[in-house]
Amino acid sequence: MPTYAADLDTVREAAARIAGFVHRTPVMTSETLDRLAGRHVFFKCENLQKTGAFKYRGATNAVRKLDAASAATGAVTHSSGNHAQALALAARVRGIPAYIVMPRTAPLVKKNAVEGYGGIVTLCEPTLAARERVAAEVVARTGGTLIPPFDHPDVIAGQGTAALELLEDVPDLDAVVAPVGGGGLLSGFCVAARGLHPGIRVFGAEPLGADDAARSKAAGKWIPQTAPDTIADGLLTSLGELTWPIIRDQVEQIFTVTEDEIRAAMRLVWERMKLVIEPSAAVGVAVVLSDGFRALTGVRKVGVVLCGGNVSLDKLYW
Amino acid sequence: MPTYAADLDTVREAAARIAGFVHRTPVMTSETLDRLAGRHVFFKCENLQKTGAFKYRGATNAVRKLDAASAATGAVTHSSGNHAQALALAARVRGIPAYIVMPRTAPLVKKNAVEGYGGIVTLCEPTLAARERVAAEVVARTGGTLIPPFDHPDVIAGQGTAALELLEDVPDLDAVVAPVGGGGLLSGFCVAARGLHPGIRVFGAEPLGADDAARSKAAGKWIPQTAPDTIADGLLTSLGELTWPIIRDQVEQIFTVTEDEIRAAMRLVWERMKLVIEPSAAVGVAVVLSDGFRALTGVRKVGVVLCGGNVSLDKLYW
Repeated sequence: MPTYAADLDTVREAAARIAGFVHRTPVMTSETLDRLAGRHVFFKCENLQKTGAFKYRGATNAVRKLDAASAATGAVTHSSGNHAQALALAARVRGIPAYIVMPRTAPLVKKNAVEGYGGIVTLCEPTLAARERVAAEVVARTGGTLIPPFDHPDVIAGQGTAALELLEDVPDLDAVVAPVGGGGLLSGFCVAARGLHPGIRVFGAEPLGADDAARSKAAGKWIPQTAPDTIADGLLTSLGELTWPIIRDQVEQIFTVTEDEIRAAMRLVWERMKLVIEPSAAVGVAVVLSDGFRALTGVRKVGVVLCGGNVSLDKLYW
Repeated sequence: MPTYAADLDTVREAAARIAGFVHRTPVMTSETLDRLAGRHVFFKCENLQKTGAFKYRGATNAVRKLDAASAATGAVTHSSGNHAQALALAARVRGIPAYIVMPRTAPLVKKNAVEGYGGIVTLCEPTLAARERVAAEVVARTGGTLIPPFDHPDVIAGQGTAALELLEDVPDLDAVVAPVGGGGLLSGFCVAARGLHPGIRVFGAEPLGADDAARSKAAGKWIPQTAPDTIADGLLTSLGELTWPIIRDQVEQIFTVTEDEIRAAMRLVWERMKLVIEPSAAVGVAVVLSDGFRALTGVRKVGVVLCGGNVSLDKLYW
């Protein structure tokens, strides 16, 4: 049996490490959503987490686990998304520098958000190769520790803490659904939930326009994401070396949804639950509302992670 | 000393009566909002109440207080706003009919919402006189009981239950702020909060474009609202015969804010707190962010009611 990058023990250690630094987010319900889903749905509101996304859990766990000598030289990452803000704030709270490499094409609002949390931004060309190369240069120059957005044991364990809270609040869930991009949230959620309740069923939620996890599961081997096309901008990346084995072996199935389903689910949550969620979070909601998921038997109560709420309010999405 | 339409006792009776029928809504905080307000701010999230507004408290209290004979013939009101939906659902939950008189100019989405909750809609001309006349006709025809949107002891007491919960969660508030239209929420909040904590300071929040409560307080006599002009469509009405004496005698001050301040506060709450609030709810937020309110001394912790989240998502408000 393979060893995985995280398990219930490391998630519990993470929970103890980050307690008091992250919000214990509420679990919300909606009679309307229950009716539409055909079962009881419990929403874990990570859009209400600090920095507006679950990413703050993994970043905080990784930053607080650094020993004093490593911490002194700071944390480094390359990201234009929620991990960048999360790492910047987690570092500031610990009182250490955060060096964030961002593509020069990133929206100014994201750069400003990172700098607002005290992050030191280095811009680079908008390619993965350039990002990795510049991040390596920053590490070499500063002696900082690279904390990647998902494919890291401490990051995966940190994301899993959301599952511990959800199952403490609603112990008799039959299944959980988490969106999957790089797989940090889904894999952390999976090892935590199944560690606590071995019989619980774990599903991934993915846009049809970035369905590398669904295709990898179907093929039984890792397939990279190429040319993703979806409004769910948190779910564009391929699975990682550490997240893929967990998803391969412990996740039952990945459900995919269309862009129209994502938009409709997003609007529904804003309108009926009064919660601002980002498109990536709507992907999980769209899955539980889909015919395929509704057809599952034996799932009376399902938990869904609303993974984030960071979205431009300069436009409508529908 | 005058007798008022509601007091701590009637609010406590209301709380016992509606327990289990209404949500105990969460109280949320935001470090960003705290920083901008210059003090600790606690948001009572009535936008997460059933039907999306605090109105469900008063409607439920009034409907459940009807004796069996009165209940059998149903409840009647005239409203195109949140009270209409609240009364429709409160009646359906009790299993009695709700007759809702709405102006024929009301948006179709509001008529559909009321009918979605099982309300029986009668359309009328869009004048207060026509609404009152048609409502009287419906009462005469059905034998139903008129439950007005704010100027009723059971409605005021029901709205006050939100203050009991807020002060149970945050007992050491120095002040509370509630938006004021007809005054049902503010007067109920006021008698409940001051009944529990006589020293607590109670403030009203009003759009400059519908500032009858501020002008009435300043003049020491009731002044009706004429030609209101504000996006805060829940705050257009004049104070009532029952709400005005409470506001006159027990509310310390009404603060007014501009349309730009309301829009900015609304966007801020959507963006930073990830909560969908309607313009009327943003009025209270705008007040705590205003220079006038920030200049108050001796207010370390303030509670603000986010009164509702029912807003069209077909447009942006900024």
